[in-house]
Amino acid sequence: MTESGLRTPPALAPDTLRIVPLGGIGEIGRNMTVFEIDGKLLIVDCGVLFPEEDQPGVDLILPDFSYIGDRLEDVVGVVLTHGHEDHIGAVPYLLRLRNDIPLIGSQLTLALVEAKLAEHRMQPWTLTVTEGQLEQLGPFQCEFVAVNHSIPDALAVFIRTAGGTVLHTGDFKMDQLPLDGRRTDLRHFARLGEEGVDLFLVDSTNADVPGFTTSEAEIGPTLEVLFGKAGKRIIVASFSSHVHRVQQVLNAAVLHGRKVAFVGRSMVRNMAIAAKLGYLNVPANVLVDLKDVGKLRDDQVVLMSTGSQGEPMAALSRMANGDHKIAVGIGDTVILASSLIPGNENAVYRIINGLLKLGADVIHKGTAKVHVSGHAAAGELLYCYNILQPKNVMPVHGETRHLIANGRIAQSSGVPASNVLLTSDGAVIDLAEGRARIVGQVECGFVYVDGQSVGEITDEDLKDRRILGDEGFISIITVVNRSTGKIVSGPDIHARGVAEDDSVFDEIKPRIAAALEEAVTASTDHTTHQLQQVVRRVIGTWVNRRLRRRPMIIPVVLEA
Amino acid sequence: MTESGLRTPPALAPDTLRIVPLGGIGEIGRNMTVFEIDGKLLIVDCGVLFPEEDQPGVDLILPDFSYIGDRLEDVVGVVLTHGHEDHIGAVPYLLRLRNDIPLIGSQLTLALVEAKLAEHRMQPWTLTVTEGQLEQLGPFQCEFVAVNHSIPDALAVFIRTAGGTVLHTGDFKMDQLPLDGRRTDLRHFARLGEEGVDLFLVDSTNADVPGFTTSEAEIGPTLEVLFGKAGKRIIVASFSSHVHRVQQVLNAAVLHGRKVAFVGRSMVRNMAIAAKLGYLNVPANVLVDLKDVGKLRDDQVVLMSTGSQGEPMAALSRMANGDHKIAVGIGDTVILASSLIPGNENAVYRIINGLLKLGADVIHKGTAKVHVSGHAAAGELLYCYNILQPKNVMPVHGETRHLIANGRIAQSSGVPASNVLLTSDGAVIDLAEGRARIVGQVECGFVYVDGQSVGEITDEDLKDRRILGDEGFISIITVVNRSTGKIVSGPDIHARGVAEDDSVFDEIKPRIAAALEEAVTASTDHTTHQLQQVVRRVIGTWVNRRLRRRPMIIPVVLEA
Repeated sequence: MTESGLRTPPALAPDTLRIVPLGGIGEIGRNMTVFEIDGKLLIVDCGVLFPEEDQPGVDLILPDFSYIGDRLEDVVGVVLTHGHEDHIGAVPYLLRLRNDIPLIGSQLTLALVEAKLAEHRMQPWTLTVTEGQLEQLGPFQCEFVAVNHSIPDALAVFIRTAGGTVLHTGDFKMDQLPLDGRRTDLRHFARLGEEGVDLFLVDSTNADVPGFTTSEAEIGPTLEVLFGKAGKRIIVASFSSHVHRVQQVLNAAVLHGRKVAFVGRSMVRNMAIAAKLGYLNVPANVLVDLKDVGKLRDDQVVLMSTGSQGEPMAALSRMANGDHKIAVGIGDTVILASSLIPGNENAVYRIINGLLKLGADVIHKGTAKVHVSGHAAAGELLYCYNILQPKNVMPVHGETRHLIANGRIAQSSGVPASNVLLTSDGAVIDLAEGRARIVGQVECGFVYVDGQSVGEITDEDLKDRRILGDEGFISIITVVNRSTGKIVSGPDIHARGVAEDDSVFDEIKPRIAAALEEAVTASTDHTTHQLQQVVRRVIGTWVNRRLRRRPMIIPVVLEA
Repeated sequence: MTESGLRTPPALAPDTLRIVPLGGIGEIGRNMTVFEIDGKLLIVDCGVLFPEEDQPGVDLILPDFSYIGDRLEDVVGVVLTHGHEDHIGAVPYLLRLRNDIPLIGSQLTLALVEAKLAEHRMQPWTLTVTEGQLEQLGPFQCEFVAVNHSIPDALAVFIRTAGGTVLHTGDFKMDQLPLDGRRTDLRHFARLGEEGVDLFLVDSTNADVPGFTTSEAEIGPTLEVLFGKAGKRIIVASFSSHVHRVQQVLNAAVLHGRKVAFVGRSMVRNMAIAAKLGYLNVPANVLVDLKDVGKLRDDQVVLMSTGSQGEPMAALSRMANGDHKIAVGIGDTVILASSLIPGNENAVYRIINGLLKLGADVIHKGTAKVHVSGHAAAGELLYCYNILQPKNVMPVHGETRHLIANGRIAQSSGVPASNVLLTSDGAVIDLAEGRARIVGQVECGFVYVDGQSVGEITDEDLKDRRILGDEGFISIITVVNRSTGKIVSGPDIHARGVAEDDSVFDEIKPRIAAALEEAVTASTDHTTHQLQQVVRRVIGTWVNRRLRRRPMIIPVVLEA
């Protein structure tokens, strides 16, 4: 144990596979796992995490690349299991460090990551793979397995090494009647299980949900009924990568003689990619450009929109605020065909209330079957464990509560408790001779993207922001004459976000001035910092007592 | 219509009852309704609303009392339907305006409000009432009706006036097997229905939940099973006013030979009141003081705690952070016997994850039947409408989505759509000759309590806080010599919450200085404000372009 609580891992022994998750363990997002053997590294996924309310102003959170920072030349490739942001979103930031790391993934996954990289003016090296395919990447033999998820063309990856075999599911569920017929391939899982899975890295997102995830196909009939009842415009919101959800909207539109316009930049972009590659089957004449929607009758229109999570700048939120060219009105039907990610509730309910006030009917997963999850629930996970019978299990992709629930399912299938690894980001796990062990812990902090800056904002900055946001600040500026020690200007007080009129400070200014002049007179060798501390003390005490607040206090003393 | 969108209501006609909700319509909280006839006012409830994440630093939100501000002498009393904060929390602030307004309520309700007022060093005038009781309060004849809710001794109030009759439910549900045998009195409702309910003000909180709320009594058996399985300490968290939930915890503790310690100031206070008045039946020797818990074996302990909504300073949150004298450990059982109020999800999940990391088992309403709601679901509301057959309906206590759902239930029971009033805070409704009409709209903003200040913080201050919290600020201080126009100190740049090291500003300082000196030289009659605008422009453009951020910019130019 080092002082910081980190445990330096031992040197990697021969014929041992090292696994280091740099994200996704203890959080839903920034999934990234590093595999190492024979001096080479293989990365699976490289995603972003979205900030919570105690990380104000942060745009994105990246995995901490510092563990591999000086080993980038040893990276043989990044396997991307599917095209969601929490699995591909950090790729541009990794490629800034070395731009020729090969990206390995399915056709759709690579198309989505290439579109993202194009926005960063980057062009990656890629290797397109498909289910059943074998690729030797340095000392790693990768075999890809079809899995079903809320985006098409997702893959699990089976990794054979001299240290043992690992199956990493990526995100998956086990829809037995998927829209594209591409199920999670349990025959393939069975073959791998018979060969022997030494370590199973398995999606935990829904491990605490009992039973089975409903089939995506059950949403189509609900949409058809809702479309049949709608008398005016229909607006459907979902994730912009949910090709099968959009497919069912297109199908229902055709059935009811409506045309569909895509709304929102990512929806337009992703559906163009999905249609071009054949993942989205676009019936003839069903699409219409948003700018031409006005030429149609209201009952001929479907708007397929982003913003289902209440994102304030997305189209749906602006419609709910009456701040979008589409003026939602009485009789319009809005369908939130989407999940409700914890933390987004208030934002989403604000949108629902706004749309209802405008007279729209609003349907969401609380009132109709318009959403199913993309992740395997407890019952499905148990099938997996029973088919694979892995020697060791490491739940991934989840908060502590999900990881623990998943570990319990593994145990209920017969995996010994000692072979279930509950880890955290930065854990170092060594696999050899069929046994996986936690052998150390490396530094693995949050890396914040904030405007143009990557990794420059610190937790201290965020603490400042939380104080500023909750309490505001008071800045007190005083100019002192260097030779006479007299105040020549100020104290000038500027306050923002503090609950009072500026005139409230009039009573404290003379006391600050007096305390400052006293300090200047008392000692000739005072520092500016000492004078500022005098100001801080006087006003801090007063503010706490008088206003019962604790704003940030910025005392500035200038000598002129 | 006035310019602000307010519609001045007409003078109140004779034999007309005016109803003005000052809170609770369009939000869950700060419930308050004003009734007026013959120059007298009756108030029902006076609660607080808890702030959301876009109201940073706010402690509480009050109803806007300005509508009754100059009519306080006409107030005949405040009927308090039950003792929850969203119905009584603003009473101290109302009594600051006139301290002898009589408070009317049940025994428990008044005891809770008196305890609250004692903390504000206030002693109210009170009138204790019970179900069936009639009280003439000026021109208002009030008849009280037993209703069941998640706190004992709740009352609905039936108000007879020359303008018509109104039944206000307060908060309620229709548990048919309540723990104390005190059901919502449907026989009483039936009698009032036969007499005639001109206007029905009805709790909408669960109107969008289909079916029926499960009985509170079903939680007892679950607790008994959980207590039976627990090998070490048991920690139960719930609202501190939920006497029946606590009663069932006490019962389960007795059954399993455990002792219960109350944890959290409001839990200790409320349970003392409830026990003293006989609402909580405390078996002999079941209670133990928190400070004596250490003398018991772990399997003899139940801690009954506050903090079920993730409140960061409450006992449960501190236990999850390992920051409480009760050190939660492996094998302890934590039961969140509570709702999950939208907006609190992340805070509550953080606690669950923290407790799981410490080795505790965590049970919550997602995993076991340890919570039922306190509000009538759609099926129960339909019973009410059918028994009461009101002439007019005004859904109260809810966001737009709840009010609309409740209105639809009313219509499905046969109330004509034109007699269902969907209103908002500040709406003015006149009731005469069996017809209720919206006749105006009065000013009814949020009144923020923030530290010592009430109503001083504005929405503009909150906007400042949101900017400060998301983006931080940059303050630029420059001292200019009044006579020479030369800069004698600065530009001095102070930034907080901005994602960069202060040295990043070095490159912009000379440009600010140059722009300032140019401005001073160019015109001799410049104002300080103009100079500050020069600074703001230079640094604002640079920050947006260079950092891609929009922090608050505070330019200060002092002339010395």
